Amino acid sequence: MNNFKFHARTDIRFGRDQIINLPGLLTAYGKNVLLVYGGGSIKKLGLYGQIIDLLKGFSIVELPGVEPNPRITSVREGVRLCKQHKIDVVLAVGGGSCIDAAKVIAGGAFYDGDPWDLVVDPSKIDEVLPIVTVLTLAATGSEMNGNAVISNMETKEKFGTGSPNFIPMASILDPTYLFTLPKTQTAAGTADIMSHVYEQYFQKDDEAYLSDCLCESILKTCIKYCPVALENPKDYEARSNLMWASTLALNGLVCAGKGGAWTCHPIEHELSAFYDITHGVGLAIVTPSWMRYILREKTLHKFCNYARNVWDFEGEDSMELATKGIDATENFFKECGIPMTLKEVAIEDKSIHDMAVATTNHNDMESCYVGLSTEDIETILKNCL
Amino acid sequence: MNNFKFHARTDIRFGRDQIINLPGLLTAYGKNVLLVYGGGSIKKLGLYGQIIDLLKGFSIVELPGVEPNPRITSVREGVRLCKQHKIDVVLAVGGGSCIDAAKVIAGGAFYDGDPWDLVVDPSKIDEVLPIVTVLTLAATGSEMNGNAVISNMETKEKFGTGSPNFIPMASILDPTYLFTLPKTQTAAGTADIMSHVYEQYFQKDDEAYLSDCLCESILKTCIKYCPVALENPKDYEARSNLMWASTLALNGLVCAGKGGAWTCHPIEHELSAFYDITHGVGLAIVTPSWMRYILREKTLHKFCNYARNVWDFEGEDSMELATKGIDATENFFKECGIPMTLKEVAIEDKSIHDMAVATTNHNDMESCYVGLSTEDIETILKNCL
Repeated sequence: MNNFKFHARTDIRFGRDQIINLPGLLTAYGKNVLLVYGGGSIKKLGLYGQIIDLLKGFSIVELPGVEPNPRITSVREGVRLCKQHKIDVVLAVGGGSCIDAAKVIAGGAFYDGDPWDLVVDPSKIDEVLPIVTVLTLAATGSEMNGNAVISNMETKEKFGTGSPNFIPMASILDPTYLFTLPKTQTAAGTADIMSHVYEQYFQKDDEAYLSDCLCESILKTCIKYCPVALENPKDYEARSNLMWASTLALNGLVCAGKGGAWTCHPIEHELSAFYDITHGVGLAIVTPSWMRYILREKTLHKFCNYARNVWDFEGEDSMELATKGIDATENFFKECGIPMTLKEVAIEDKSIHDMAVATTNHNDMESCYVGLSTEDIETILKNCL
Repeated sequence: MNNFKFHARTDIRFGRDQIINLPGLLTAYGKNVLLVYGGGSIKKLGLYGQIIDLLKGFSIVELPGVEPNPRITSVREGVRLCKQHKIDVVLAVGGGSCIDAAKVIAGGAFYDGDPWDLVVDPSKIDEVLPIVTVLTLAATGSEMNGNAVISNMETKEKFGTGSPNFIPMASILDPTYLFTLPKTQTAAGTADIMSHVYEQYFQKDDEAYLSDCLCESILKTCIKYCPVALENPKDYEARSNLMWASTLALNGLVCAGKGGAWTCHPIEHELSAFYDITHGVGLAIVTPSWMRYILREKTLHKFCNYARNVWDFEGEDSMELATKGIDATENFFKECGIPMTLKEVAIEDKSIHDMAVATTNHNDMESCYVGLSTEDIETILKNCL
């Protein structure tokens, strides 16, 4: 086990009707609230009205319209509102993008320059307004971690940033908010959760048995419940297990004692940058191709564990067993209705080289579980066509 | 899944030499430190000297000699020191008993009456001094939760108390501190960890698949690494996995979404009260007998899951499969060198009735996974002779 720091300080209130705790959770920080949300979904859910009712004793300033890939322009507007209205606490209601925007806004409130600086250089993040979230999507884990991803459309840049001070003080997780999600979002969100776990399960510093067992637990949960949620969107057990899985997948728990760079996320990042496809879909497409490409003597043991512990497969022949696990991964995503080739999401052969170059330009892909060159990535992507 | 609150706010610093972070972690709270510790073990480890060196810029008041079952007399003395020296932060260095004492001391610092009141009635716990811990034993999980157990020798009472405000602000977990533990403590500590998990795994409100998988992860970790640590006390992987398992077993993670009363702990509590045996040993003795007694149609499915997912057993016949899992549990404790009968720890037949009566008098045993009467408990204990 590597040394690690684990500090998931968020006060989680999980379950039906937990929204009633919102006033109590906010009161600790003050009366001036910046309410950050996205499109109309929280109004359709009835959540917007409920929150306004619950927060009658508070002074609420609204920042609506945060984009699915949150933009620095929205963040700048949020920061302006914080400074103008002496905001005490930032309340994000929505999915990961909304929460990510809220984080940089909360940091920007104490920063004199352009908040884009905090995205480019996380070391500039200092004091941060307290953040409280109400989650309406199970995917990014942003509700219990210090990460944020922000896009700048002027410079065509999209960067991840983060700080321990970005970790929300409290998050309300009510699985019933997932009941009305479209199937495509349920499936892509699950692929995102699973990819977070894969990135942490398959790593260079790989001696942390307990953390690996926790990884397998989350993967098994996704595999068991995503099909149930797709079949019956109002299945509470399925939705609650997926929601809690998304939170635990990226709060520092499953990588405790492990270390190494991520692989599929940097590759997918370029797919999304070049073609604006859904993040979870890109991850689902790349994952099995990557697994097949890196399956070799050195990784065989790990892929056998994966096949055995996550998929319950058995077999004497290690290579056969490992391959069964990878095939099952691909079939699972397919059966969840995710398009599993680049062609299906209109990504063309001719861009593959450029996307592979961009991946290695922007990331140290040599530090991944199996180090990858531009040519390696090109092959992985070609195998997805 | 039941609704739940999860708030494990402790800043965990895990690994070799993490003690160097101690001054930084304390500085946030002030310069006046109450150092709470037990016998001489932290001096033998060299930890005492190291801490005194590291904290040269701090003003340290010491409370040594906290008992293995911490007594209210030590707590009272700690509270007196806090008030006299205007203590800012309580630093507990040791195992669970030391940390438990520190918690009630930290609460007592803001309480005008006798701190025993806070043990008898947790609702009286209000403001609490910040608590920082350095853990030297893997067992109770006290380093990341709000629980404390304190004994009163005058009234012959031993009660558990707790408050979210008791949760330590930071805990340093260095697995090398476990290298010098005697085998008996390693084994009993592991039995304690496993029992914490069994209590949460086998519960009445039993629909939280992810939490059950996390339970199985911790159990598998204990089963894999306790024998390794017994064989080679300085095996870092074994010690680190056991240490982290103990923390995660009782920080609210594995019972998220589940509910119901504990069974073996209340029964063992009376064994310890009547005969002063080691808590972990008592738990190991009672557990398999309890499992066999409650194995029936209604619980069969769960015990089959346990046998399959924790012990990797297979089989068509459910009752046979479940029994294999229970037998394996008993054999495991035996092979770890734990005495597995009441006779071996000098507990006599004649006290069994009284201990069973005391168990049902002090606890609502009807709310357990399988509700138990005094007669049931008597039978379970008789089967341990």
